Amino acid sequence: MKESLNLDYIPKGYSSLAINCGIKDKSLDLGIIHSEKPANAAAFFTTNKIKGAPVLVGKKHINDGLIQTLIVNSKVSNVAMGKKGYEDALYVCKKTAENLNIKTDLIFPSSTGVIGRPLPVDKIVNAITNLKTKLIHPPDFKTFAEAIMTTDTFPKYVSKKIGSSSLIAVAKGAGMIEPNMATMLTYFFTDAEIEAEALRKIFHKAVDNSFNCLSVDSDTSTSDTALILANGLAGRVDLSLFEEKVFEAAIELTKMLAFDAEGATKLFIVDIEGAKDNEQAKKIGKSIINSPLVKTAIYQGDPNWGRIYMAIGKTPDVEIDEEKIELFWGKTPKKYSNDELKSLSEYIKSSREIYLKINLNIKDGISRVYGCDLTEEYVRINAFYTT
Amino acid sequence: MKESLNLDYIPKGYSSLAINCGIKDKSLDLGIIHSEKPANAAAFFTTNKIKGAPVLVGKKHINDGLIQTLIVNSKVSNVAMGKKGYEDALYVCKKTAENLNIKTDLIFPSSTGVIGRPLPVDKIVNAITNLKTKLIHPPDFKTFAEAIMTTDTFPKYVSKKIGSSSLIAVAKGAGMIEPNMATMLTYFFTDAEIEAEALRKIFHKAVDNSFNCLSVDSDTSTSDTALILANGLAGRVDLSLFEEKVFEAAIELTKMLAFDAEGATKLFIVDIEGAKDNEQAKKIGKSIINSPLVKTAIYQGDPNWGRIYMAIGKTPDVEIDEEKIELFWGKTPKKYSNDELKSLSEYIKSSREIYLKINLNIKDGISRVYGCDLTEEYVRINAFYTT
Repeated sequence: MKESLNLDYIPKGYSSLAINCGIKDKSLDLGIIHSEKPANAAAFFTTNKIKGAPVLVGKKHINDGLIQTLIVNSKVSNVAMGKKGYEDALYVCKKTAENLNIKTDLIFPSSTGVIGRPLPVDKIVNAITNLKTKLIHPPDFKTFAEAIMTTDTFPKYVSKKIGSSSLIAVAKGAGMIEPNMATMLTYFFTDAEIEAEALRKIFHKAVDNSFNCLSVDSDTSTSDTALILANGLAGRVDLSLFEEKVFEAAIELTKMLAFDAEGATKLFIVDIEGAKDNEQAKKIGKSIINSPLVKTAIYQGDPNWGRIYMAIGKTPDVEIDEEKIELFWGKTPKKYSNDELKSLSEYIKSSREIYLKINLNIKDGISRVYGCDLTEEYVRINAFYTT
Repeated sequence: MKESLNLDYIPKGYSSLAINCGIKDKSLDLGIIHSEKPANAAAFFTTNKIKGAPVLVGKKHINDGLIQTLIVNSKVSNVAMGKKGYEDALYVCKKTAENLNIKTDLIFPSSTGVIGRPLPVDKIVNAITNLKTKLIHPPDFKTFAEAIMTTDTFPKYVSKKIGSSSLIAVAKGAGMIEPNMATMLTYFFTDAEIEAEALRKIFHKAVDNSFNCLSVDSDTSTSDTALILANGLAGRVDLSLFEEKVFEAAIELTKMLAFDAEGATKLFIVDIEGAKDNEQAKKIGKSIINSPLVKTAIYQGDPNWGRIYMAIGKTPDVEIDEEKIELFWGKTPKKYSNDELKSLSEYIKSSREIYLKINLNIKDGISRVYGCDLTEEYVRINAFYTT
């Protein structure tokens, strides 16, 4: 996973800030990425019906397809704070815009952390005074990735060359912040020139087949956000190459997120084939990677294929035929008979990336989903602390 | 929970057998309850699309609304064994019927345990030779309840007086059997005289509002079965009293199951009020008791109400208004402000039964659901063993 980490290709026209503004004790808690010109932008948000205030403000600001500046704080998520929360998120945008001499709706805000606590607006506003002089160029995406971390154990970013343009993609999660739920944030920055609608389509497809195929614990954060900015400074780019590279970056970040999930020791990649359609394949895949009994079996290498069957069968509204189901394990897919369970157990135990391919032999629907194991450490991280 | 355990009222006309037939090493693994005459019967089964062979046979045999004999083995579930599994389940029924001189379709079979292993048919058939002479009367429901246990830590049964008739209800689960998924089995026996259709309706309502409101880990077994027999020997009974007592027994067993769930230390009872309708209330309740982040918070008394909000909000297709949600904790419901979180934490930490009432203030839909906490012990029970 970590072998993907690189900042070899930095898109033009971006500057950054990553500081401690006093929300956390010492470590970085505020990150800003600023584009020298407004960028075509697309974003996708949490499906949770309770949405963080920054999500609501961000949705509004990206409405015209243009964003110039991203401002993210960690540790306090500004969720479930009612009208006050919305006003706070908007106020941070206003102050950021004032300092940069740009319009407020060019600012995209994010917050991640504990729910139900007021955003420390003064600390943030104080930290961005004279923001123009504080922004560094070339931008430092590594410290930005650090500033948005919660219980992540390493900052997550990748960079890609796309023709004459570059792409940086950053993500955080799926970790816990004292004391709250996992939040997934991911931001993509490029200097390629892409129209807003094409950008939206490409990014939607990438997000849907990567981050949306990931589940750590089936709990959906109120703050999930995926954002892409394309400021166009590197000129036009081959669209299919661009699509390929955005997807590649999304997959690499998705794997990092699963791998760094709370308490996880194994990445679990499940391919569903032969489903009635792709949607059913994804539902069945999600049912498997979300099953506590499957996740605990993966943890200690229990070759308990009965639990996989159970998870397939409990998926609502899908078509399966028990007799036709085939299971293959490993990067080079292999069937294991009941006499070979010991060797299957050894494969699971000795691998940090577990591959499972399931052929339902119904039609040609396929999907790949990303999960992880469930360990005592997950319980500890999420149970033992006092607010 | 255990205070409900009693066998004060034994319905007439039943006899029993509980023995070790050699599937387990030493402990009881085969239980039979036999009615001296065919009983009106109703049953409900797992919604998992992969169903155990005994479920398929049982469904067929109960089709005419009459059952006389229940035969249950533990340790091997006879699931995912294809045609052979079905034939094995049917063969056990045939042999049981032969020994009792009754028709095969009066036999109701159940199995619970590991998936994907052949049923030890010979051991079972051997054990039921001369079954008539082995059945004891009055029946011993306690040893029967023991014979169907997997990782349950205590046998689960209640008895009720209903006018001149009696009711015994028995359950097992939601425990693990080496090495498989939780299976919930529950059997109700009465000597009341109830027509099959009325019995079905009353039992359906009771099951739907008790066992179907229970979730230990969101995993649905392939063998779940709820069965009621009414042999009529005690004559007619007041139907509304009967309905009330069946529901009472179902709720008491449901609480026992949640309390005895794998690794659980706390029973978590959640009342949803003010939902758009009862169905939405149940969905939201299930989303809460299935959330790993809520379950871990309950475990160590983390007063993290943000996780409750998250779980409400992630429920698919329900109507909520974040601003209107109210949370009340305790058997005598009490609101806790952010300044009182320490006292809320103490309530959760010090209680073995946690009560949470949520008013959504939308309409008048209500539901009560039953769950438990998620502990390291759950992970251990389900992760650490070798097949």
